[in-house]
Formats: sequence, structure tokens, C-alpha cells
Amino acid sequence: MAGNTLGTLFTVTTFGESHGPAIGCVIDGCPPGLALNEADIQADLDRRKPGTSRHVTQRKEPDTVEILSGVFEGITTGTPIALLIRNTDQRSKDYGNIVETFRPGHADYTYWHKYGVRDYRGGGRSSARLTAPLVAAGAVARKWLNEKFGTQIRGYMAQLGEIDVPFVGWEHVRNNPFFAANPDVVGRLETYMDDLRKVGDSVGARINVVASGIPVGLGEPLFDKLDAEIAYAMMGINAVKGVEIGAGFACIAQKGSEHGDELTPAGFLSNNAGGVLGGISTGQDITVSIAIKPTSSIRTPRRSIDKAGQPTMVETFGRHDPCVGIRATPIAEALLALVLIDHALRHRAQCGEVSVDTPVIAARAPEST
Amino acid sequence: MAGNTLGTLFTVTTFGESHGPAIGCVIDGCPPGLALNEADIQADLDRRKPGTSRHVTQRKEPDTVEILSGVFEGITTGTPIALLIRNTDQRSKDYGNIVETFRPGHADYTYWHKYGVRDYRGGGRSSARLTAPLVAAGAVARKWLNEKFGTQIRGYMAQLGEIDVPFVGWEHVRNNPFFAANPDVVGRLETYMDDLRKVGDSVGARINVVASGIPVGLGEPLFDKLDAEIAYAMMGINAVKGVEIGAGFACIAQKGSEHGDELTPAGFLSNNAGGVLGGISTGQDITVSIAIKPTSSIRTPRRSIDKAGQPTMVETFGRHDPCVGIRATPIAEALLALVLIDHALRHRAQCGEVSVDTPVIAARAPEST
Amino acid sequence: MAGNTLGTLFTVTTFGESHGPAIGCVIDGCPPGLALNEADIQADLDRRKPGTSRHVTQRKEPDTVEILSGVFEGITTGTPIALLIRNTDQRSKDYGNIVETFRPGHADYTYWHKYGVRDYRGGGRSSARLTAPLVAAGAVARKWLNEKFGTQIRGYMAQLGEIDVPFVGWEHVRNNPFFAANPDVVGRLETYMDDLRKVGDSVGARINVVASGIPVGLGEPLFDKLDAEIAYAMMGINAVKGVEIGAGFACIAQKGSEHGDELTPAGFLSNNAGGVLGGISTGQDITVSIAIKPTSSIRTPRRSIDKAGQPTMVETFGRHDPCVGIRATPIAEALLALVLIDHALRHRAQCGEVSVDTPVIAARAPEST
Amino acid sequence: MAGNTLGTLFTVTTFGESHGPAIGCVIDGCPPGLALNEADIQADLDRRKPGTSRHVTQRKEPDTVEILSGVFEGITTGTPIALLIRNTDQRSKDYGNIVETFRPGHADYTYWHKYGVRDYRGGGRSSARLTAPLVAAGAVARKWLNEKFGTQIRGYMAQLGEIDVPFVGWEHVRNNPFFAANPDVVGRLETYMDDLRKVGDSVGARINVVASGIPVGLGEPLFDKLDAEIAYAMMGINAVKGVEIGAGFACIAQKGSEHGDELTPAGFLSNNAGGVLGGISTGQDITVSIAIKPTSSIRTPRRSIDKAGQPTMVETFGRHDPCVGIRATPIAEALLALVLIDHALRHRAQCGEVSVDTPVIAARAPEST
Repeated sequence: MAGNTLGTLFTVTTFGESHGPAIGCVIDGCPPGLALNEADIQADLDRRKPGTSRHVTQRKEPDTVEILSGVFEGITTGTPIALLIRNTDQRSKDYGNIVETFRPGHADYTYWHKYGVRDYRGGGRSSARLTAPLVAAGAVARKWLNEKFGTQIRGYMAQLGEIDVPFVGWEHVRNNPFFAANPDVVGRLETYMDDLRKVGDSVGARINVVASGIPVGLGEPLFDKLDAEIAYAMMGINAVKGVEIGAGFACIAQKGSEHGDELTPAGFLSNNAGGVLGGISTGQDITVSIAIKPTSSIRTPRRSIDKAGQPTMVETFGRHDPCVGIRATPIAEALLALVLIDHALRHRAQCGEVSVDTPVIAARAPEST
Repeated sequence: MAGNTLGTLFTVTTFGESHGPAIGCVIDGCPPGLALNEADIQADLDRRKPGTSRHVTQRKEPDTVEILSGVFEGITTGTPIALLIRNTDQRSKDYGNIVETFRPGHADYTYWHKYGVRDYRGGGRSSARLTAPLVAAGAVARKWLNEKFGTQIRGYMAQLGEIDVPFVGWEHVRNNPFFAANPDVVGRLETYMDDLRKVGDSVGARINVVASGIPVGLGEPLFDKLDAEIAYAMMGINAVKGVEIGAGFACIAQKGSEHGDELTPAGFLSNNAGGVLGGISTGQDITVSIAIKPTSSIRTPRRSIDKAGQPTMVETFGRHDPCVGIRATPIAEALLALVLIDHALRHRAQCGEVSVDTPVIAARAPEST
Repeated sequence: MAGNTLGTLFTVTTFGESHGPAIGCVIDGCPPGLALNEADIQADLDRRKPGTSRHVTQRKEPDTVEILSGVFEGITTGTPIALLIRNTDQRSKDYGNIVETFRPGHADYTYWHKYGVRDYRGGGRSSARLTAPLVAAGAVARKWLNEKFGTQIRGYMAQLGEIDVPFVGWEHVRNNPFFAANPDVVGRLETYMDDLRKVGDSVGARINVVASGIPVGLGEPLFDKLDAEIAYAMMGINAVKGVEIGAGFACIAQKGSEHGDELTPAGFLSNNAGGVLGGISTGQDITVSIAIKPTSSIRTPRRSIDKAGQPTMVETFGRHDPCVGIRATPIAEALLALVLIDHALRHRAQCGEVSVDTPVIAARAPEST
Repeated sequence: MAGNTLGTLFTVTTFGESHGPAIGCVIDGCPPGLALNEADIQADLDRRKPGTSRHVTQRKEPDTVEILSGVFEGITTGTPIALLIRNTDQRSKDYGNIVETFRPGHADYTYWHKYGVRDYRGGGRSSARLTAPLVAAGAVARKWLNEKFGTQIRGYMAQLGEIDVPFVGWEHVRNNPFFAANPDVVGRLETYMDDLRKVGDSVGARINVVASGIPVGLGEPLFDKLDAEIAYAMMGINAVKGVEIGAGFACIAQKGSEHGDELTPAGFLSNNAGGVLGGISTGQDITVSIAIKPTSSIRTPRRSIDKAGQPTMVETFGRHDPCVGIRATPIAEALLALVLIDHALRHRAQCGEVSVDTPVIAARAPEST
């Protein structure tokens, strides 16, 4: 209830702070019998980890994961899977100047007022570093979903600041540090980020995520609608300020005759719904788009107050991502996986065994997200 | 876990179907000692109820609420408050033609595949009629929040189809059937809706909601962030496809030096955050914007399939809102209230008594939402 | 979280007070496709209802149940099942003398201190009348368990005050007002109760419950052990002060070589475990025994204090059961059913479809409970 | 939902297996501002740890705890507190003979049927070793309760096999390996255990726990009654088969005029209720008694079956407690503390700040438990 557990049947409880000894999570409810080892998880962690290009934070963390429990002889046993990642490259002295001061755009002010005590080092618990355990847990979820349903969950950066990044093909995503599904804009993105870094500013981004290979029927119809839970999970990622499913905000200006996806024996003819109707998956691709605000930690001096309420100026040192959106793609994928596995188990609980073998449904092309 | 309960400490469990004998809810966790009677609740229900103008469904439901428990001599006792609303104007025969058919854009297809059985009358459980118990529960939440913190929660329609509805003043909202905060566009909206109704089509809308008088510190920082829970609650409203907090999707193109709200001893200088930083309320106004898709029930014939998978055409009869967004304002307000009271109680549990007496914070003007 | 919901996947949220307009519950998570009508539920309610013999309270309540939702054309749809029972025979004036006074053994004192407000009429929410909605919900659970696994849940009174009631056969239970599984002691029980009633006193009882036809594997191993959840559910029944599973307190003096149930290819050779090992069902009969305290409402004057803390004497008028244990058998059965269905769904969620087709296990005879 | 989290507002999620690399837990919801360091926790762990006398298992585990998060500069921050205990003295080869066989009285059979996979080393997750993280979490709960309310939670062994251990005084409990509150029976207990060990058998025990310094008002009245939650927590301890609150099973033969605790301005005159009326704390001592079955791991050969269903004989080697009840006292105390802190927070959420300053209530002497 203090908000550090995600999910109801496949639950992930995370712990840790940016500059504490370790971060990690406990997964409870993982089905038994899944082959799982550290390498399965490390691959996703490596996609998110810092220090891999000049466009992200230069903190060097190997993010090496240790499985402490729940796996025996390479197989999940149905008991809790504890994952541990030691912090190794803290530089807490960089944060000495914010002990008494609230950085604009950060959680400093709200943590202080909520708890009356605050681990200011690297943002403490509010650091984006805490997305690492989620990516680790998401890797477990993805593996199960893939083995069970053939589910694939993939994301890409669709916009960086003012620059649109049109979708060209999934094969491009891994070939650039931006997770752009488009090789032609990468040069422009690099120049843009280099310029930003020079002036000590930051910028926002849009990430799209698509899940395919989804059984019909996932999602609880009234409150725990599949799209409501996706919105919750995505808005819970640090810095996210908006979430769309399917047509999203574009639906406002659509007519009903245009928005409602027609059905034929061969499947749906469009996917304005984004794969969810009445809160329940249709079997089409689930399409999600999120807005990520610019990093609040910037070198530009800004007005703020200190704990005594006195005016002051704050400049943020330390090592930071000039666009937190750049590393957000694997995080958004992980959270979508976590929502999906949770609802797969919930559906199975109430309605019995679930399968992906339903009438063929035409998938919406991701570029039209 | 089957998704019919909202909240963790102030919980609302709803029940009922559009054409069943009754709908209602059970509120559990309401603080004792709140003066409460049916009239407190009825006022909000009346703002949402159908049949009040030619622009909404013509189903006539008085939506009269009966308090069955939890209130003794006009005071809440801390025990569950059960609220009952009898359905009185069902016309189930209007739905005879969809017994075997899935209406595009509706939950018919997904309910059928999830449960293998479906109450097709008026959409059954997936009907927007089920927002009535939420509005009723929200009225209880609003009353407590107002008495405790002076909280005010207000919404308005900001866009109808292609028509922007700029905010002019809260006093206008109650004077037109659209919840427009602007008297000058009402004529245009009426013509627009009349035209739509003639052609048997529907359209989407954008609703903005603003909560003011909020204590600092509400929201759990990792998963149950206040904004994440708002996104969850809003996306759970029928037909919502997108949610924004504060600057929302506009933050993508913002620079960090522009987005991060500066602080002075007199308060924040802007509210791009929408009143939430790191998942916790700042004490500023909480600003939310949602996209509502066009009504799926339209008189235009559309392609679909029947239960046997055979192609068919569907036209929807019955009485429907040509824009479900028109009645969505009180619903969105209610859900925001329900999220806020839940987090007020959660905050009190972990951190002790909560108050709104914190340093004065400049509220963001709602028109800039 | 305010404690009016039982279960995690098959949840029962109850509402109502002894002298309010109605009591009832909302069941969420019931699997779809179960044939269900009011008569299925009424049969169990009739076994619990008051006024059926001179040994129980003379309040006349038909306890007629109305299904408000979740059932369509006689089949559960997977949506919430709301059950409503109107109160009809309140005599609130009988309670005028306790408005300002706390009855010994009752919840008057604790409700007052917890909430600062109290519905004193008939005990309000703390009345045993609130077990009626549980019996109703239990009837739904029992029907599903029986159709799915052939589960049978049966209870009997094993002790009334100082009188042991040895188990003879299930067929006797329905033939006497005490739920005694033994025709020979019924006369003695009647005399005993008649004597008690004359002196205005009350007495305790022991109820045994046995569930047979249980799949192996129900129960979560660490905290939500099947036996822990049974203990929780049973101790939640009004007036219960002790719970045993299997050998119960007798296990203290047992040796390990005596207690541990040996296995053979034909099944277990004994059932000291009461059907649960390591928190998980073994497939044997689940055997539970509970202690119910004497009714606190007695005509004997007793010392107490009033709200002002001044000494006073209290005598309880109104209509009461001289032994609340007499009507407790169907209640305990219902709660066992509710725990079992919840764990059947939880097991299915994590481990897949559940079946009762496991190696034949010798059931423990109920008389040795 | 897979049952590895205890509590609703002060939650403890545990992980680990007897012979895995580590065990531990994550506490979520701890109030901020509590002074806490490893020594606060280690003291309780040392009372439970193995190898401290010849009457308990000879496995040597220092049970050294590491705080991984949630504490900054010696103060809890309100974020999750992760506690890690490395396993150091596993001897997994001792368990080679049970890879294919189910030990009578153990969870081997049920884990195997539930999950289809099983970590057989030392009982895996079903080992009593998993109570260590609970004792650690309980130490945090006790510290907060003591600082907030002056709560004291103490337990003692009240019976070992056939030997009653009458309560003499709390000061004796720490002076013998049995947690006996009586110096005179210690010699007899030692001889009894020495004899048992020689014949390779085991025996059960009764543990009593008493909490004093409890505010009035803790506990949710319908399902999450304080006594119901205590029963749940206690029955969740490995090997517990029975739980009593207050008079417990003795209440069956009591009259109402004897059982109901009378009140005077100076407090209650007795404590048959065990400190709980209507599920809510009265402010009196909370008194609990539990039955612990004899250890299932014994050197006596017993009949069983293997995975193929074939008959076999099993003798358990490895290092085991001949009476698991001997080390159960600190575990039962910890669980009572965890239930109490959870309900203190729940009460504060709904009803506001809680205090222990209520009318003086006479505490029941523990010897009369």
C-alpha cells in the first residue's frame, strides 16, 4: 500500500535508492516451470544501463543481476524470485549542494514534505535508476509470455524534442543509441543532443510500444481495464506526463463511423482501439504511446527555495541523461510485459486456461501508432 | 481482483448492468463522523443523469439513490456505505438485433470471448450507465475532502470534435448542457451536435479537470504515484483513450529550462507538473486532461461478424449519447475525488495526520491546462 | 482495507447493520457460466435464519435474497453478483437502554472508542445478523466447488457447554435444531438449553466442519497458507475464540512418530494434518474445529460503565440466541467454502487448471476430528 | 497474491529458500522518522537463531542481517526497507535421499503436486528457516510500536509435550533455552528433550504471547478483525495447528455470566476476551496461545511413497530441531508485532491519529492465559 508493489497476481516489489548499497526486487506469483537464468535477465538490463553512449548519463553501472531465490536447477519453482543489483559507481558528493535545496522539476520538494526526511543522494528513491529492477522483472514476464502465447513486445522512440522519428522498421531500433526505428534521422538526433548537452539543457521524448501475440480476453472490465492498468504502469515511469492507447488524443476529432474498428471474418480492419475494447484485449496489437518530460537535472541555474523557505538558485551537477526518454524504451516495454502477465494470470484465475488460438485478427501496423 | 473495486483504503465496489434490476456500490473505509444524506449525493447524480437535454440519451432515469447502510442519524459510522439505484427505464427489446452480433467499437466482442456469456441488453456491464455509482461515491469523497482540506474539484469540456472550447470562467459550466466554461461557443456546439444527430454519427471530446486545495504529500512515490493512479482512474472511464497530467504531451517538445516549475517563497511560478512531482502532490492545482472517443453506438451501418464468425452489418438502435463526452465531466470529477481521498488516507496511515496548511503555492490558472 | 471484503480472487464485500434497511454483499470474481438462481442461495439461508426453534432468537426474518446483478438468463456472467436481503423485523426500541452504556462482552465499547459514533440498535454492524450475507455468498461458492470438484462441505455441533456431542452420522444433522450429528443427545441438549433460558444465561459451543473432495495443491505456502486463511475466516465469525486444524491442540502432546501422517500408494494412513501440509491441501478431508463463546447478551445484570465513564449495571433485553453456536454450523461451512474457492482460483492463476483427479487419498473419519 | 506478503499497510514480502544463497524480506510502508540500525534487528534474530543449545538444530547460521535500503543516516525514510541474510551453512547432500520421496508430515508431497517442481534441499521454501526474515521485520515493528505506544510483546513456552510449564515471571524467559517463564521445570525439560533426541523422535509445544500497551480501537470489525488477523498470522507459522485468543477453547463450557468481562471505571475486571471485542482491541493485554506440532523430520523410519507412487520407507537425516516449538517464541512475538503495527496504521488511515491514552484498563495477568 506504500506503493512499491506492482501487480496483483504477478507482483513486483522493488527496493533501493540511487546511492544505497543495492537495488532490486522480489517477484511473487511467477508460474512454476519456466526455464530462467541470469543471462535471460541481463540482456534486457544491458539495453537500459547507463554509460553506453555519450547521449546518456556517464555513470558506469554494470547492473549485474543476481538471482537470490525462486529458481532451482534453472527452473522457476513458483516461490518468490528475488533479484539483486549492487550499486557500484555512486558519487554522492556531487549532491552536497542540494542537501538543503529543492531542485525544480524534481521530487525533492514533495519527498521532503511527505516524509520529513530525504535521501538526497542522486535523488534517492525517486531516481530513474529504480527502473532497473523493473526491467529485470519485465524480462521474466516477457519470457513467460513469449513461451506461452508467442507474445512480442517492442518499443521505439517516436519523437525527440521537436524532431519526429517516423517508424521504418523494427530492425533499426537496436542499431542506434536512441531506439529509433529509422536509420535516416539518427544523424540529426545526434547533432540535436550534442547541441543540448553543450548548453546544459534537456528535452522530452515520445516512446511508442507495441505488443503482438496477445490472447483475446485479458483485462478486467470495470476498473482494472487493461488500458487503465497500462496507463497506470506507464504514468508510473519517472517523467511520464501523458499516455495514449490506440488512436489516443486523435480520437477527439474522429467520428464514430471512423473510429470504431470494423470486423470481418479475417479480423479487424483497423486498430483505433489499440487492441483494447471495454477494457479487454481484442487480440490485435496493443499500441501505447507515452510522453516523457525533459530531464529536470540541468546545468542551467534556476530559482528555487531551501528548506527554510528562503530563495536560492540551483544548478544541478552530477551525471545525468540530457533526455531521460532515450533509455525509456526498454522500461516501457518491461512495464507493458508486467501488466500483460498479470492480466493473463487474472484471466486464467476467473475464466480458466487462456490461449492465443482465436480467430485470426489483422494486426495494426506499428507505423500508424 | 476481478476489477470491480476502486481504491485501496477508500474502496468503491460497484455492481449492476444497464438493464438489470439495479446498479449501485459499496464504499468501504469512509472516515466516521461525516454528515451525509441522500441529497448530498443526488446533486452530483443529477448532473450526470441522462435525458436532461436533446444532446444526450433520451433514456429517462431519475437515478434516485438510496443509502442502505453505514450512515446512522445522518452521520457516517465508519462501516460500509451501500448505495442503491434502481433501473426504471430499460427497453431491452431495442437490443434484440445484437444478441448474435458484435457492434464495432463496443465491448461485445471482448466480453463474449472473455466470459463465453454476455448480457447484451444495453451493453450490460460495459454500459456507461455504470458510471452513476461512481458519481455517487465521488460525492461522498468530495464532501469529506472539502470539509477536511477545502478541496474543490471542477471540470469542463475543452474540445468537442474539431471545436476548441477555450476556458473563460467556472461560472459558465453549469449554464449549458455541454459543461463548457465559455458561453460564446455554446451555440456552435448545439448546431454541431444537431447536425451529427441527423446523420446518425457521433464524435469525441476532451475534458479537463482541476483540483485545488490539495495538501502537499499525497501519492506514493514508486508505483502508486498520484498521477499514475489518476491515469488509471481516468482511463477506466468508458471510452477514454488518453490521459495527460499538467503539460502532458506538450512536454515532449519542451526544454528542461522551460518545463521545470521554479519555486519562490511565494510558491511555484508555473505548473507544468500539473501539481505532481515524483508522484506526490505539490499543493498546486492538479490538472488533468482526457480524450474521450466517439460513441460506438451509431445508426450508420457498419461491417461486423456474428458469433459464428460470419460477416454481417450492424446498425445500433436504442437510445444513446451522440457524444459520451458531454456527460463525462461529473464522472471525471468524481474519479479524481476518489483517487484523492484514497491517497489522503494512505498518506495519513504512513505519515500521520495531513493538513493543507503548507507554504502558499501559486495555483496554475485552469485555462492554461 | 476497512475489513469488509473477504477473499482475494473470489471476493465478498458485505454491508449493512442489524436494524438498517437492508444487508447484503457483492461477490466479485465468480467464474462465468455457473447456473445460479435465488433458490440455490435461499436453501442455505434458511438453515441459518432466526426464529426456527425455541432455542434461537425469536426475531422473525425471512431472509429472502434478491440477486441484483451478475446473473443473466440463469447463468453467472463473470460480473459482480450483488445480493440483497431486506431487514423486516427490527425492534430498535429494545435497545434504548444501551445508547449510553457498553454491554460486557460486546463490541459496544470498542466501536465507540474506534469510531466515536455507534449504531447501537441490535449491535449495528457487529451483530451476528451480518453472517447472513456470508451464508448467501458461501452458497454460490459451494455450488461452483461441487460442480467443479465434487466438493462437499459439512459441519456439526460437537460440544454444547459441558455436553459432548459425539459424531454418529451426517444424516442426523438436519433432524434437530442443534446440528447435532447424533440423535441420542438431542433430548439432553433441549433440556440444557431450556434450563439456561430460564435463568437468563448463555453458553458456548464447539463446531466441527469437514470438507471432502478437495484437489491437492490449494493454498499459498508462506503467509496465505490454506490453514492460515481458514483460521482467519473462522476467527472472523462473531464470537469465535479458537480454531484448530486437524489434530489441533492435541498435537502438543503428540510425538513426531505419531503425528506425521504416513503415506501408502492407497493414500494417507491418518489425517492429523487435517488435510493441509505446509499450507497446501493434501487432497484429504480438511477438518476444522472452532470454539464459540457464550452469547454476551444475557438477562443477568452485570457491571459496566457508561460513555461518561460512570459505573452502571446492564441487563440486555431484545431477542437473542442463548447459544450463538447453535446457528453457527451453516456459517462455518460457508466460510470454509469461501476460502476454498478463493484458493482454487488462486491456484489456477499461478499453476494452471486444477483437477481433483489425483491418487486416491484415504479420508479421515469425521468423528475423530 | 502468491502468499509471500504479509500485511496490508505495513507489508513484509519475504523470499528465499533454506539452502539458497540468501533469505530476506522487503518491508513497505514503515513510517518515516524511526531510528533504526542493524543492531536493533540483530538482537531479535539472535534469540531465534539455530545452534544456540543442544536442544535445537546444530546448523550454524550467524543470521547476520544487512539493511539494503530505506534507512538514511540511521533514520527510516518511508521507502522500502530491504533486509538480507546470507545462508552460510547449507549441507544439501544430507537431503539426497528425499529427492524422489515425500517425507510424512512435511510439505514435500503438497509442493510437488502444486508446482510440479521442488527445491528439496532442507525443505526449500517450506523450511522454518524462513521465519528469520519475519523476526527481522518484527523487530522493526516492535521498535515503532514501543516508541509510539509503549507496547511490549512477550512470549513464553507454556507446554512441552506432556509437560506443563506454568508462568512464574517474565524475568526467567531469557535464562533458559526453552523460553520457559519458570526456572523450576527447566531441568525436567532438559531431560525430556535429551531422551527424545536419543530415540530420534520429536514433540509438540504450546507458546503463549502477550502484548501490553495497546491502544483501544485497533482491528477492522468484520473480516479483518484483530483476532482474525492474529489467527491468520499465527497459523501461518510453520507447524502451528491451533490458535486461541483469550479464554480460547475454554469458552465453550463457560456461561455468558462468567465469560463476558465486566467493566468498572478502573477498567475491565477480567480478560476472557483476550483484549479483543468485536474484532477491535479493548486496550487490555492481547493474549494468544498456539499449538505447535512435533517436528516432522525424525530419524524414525516411516512409510511413504515416491514420486512414482511406489511405497518406500523414509528416515530424515540432516540437522533438525527435535521440537520446533522451542525456537517459536520470538517468531510468535514478531508476528503479533507485525499484525499490530499493520492495524495501527489502518486505524490511523480511517479514523485519524491513534493514542494509547485511554481510560486505565486492568491488564489480565499472563499466567491466567
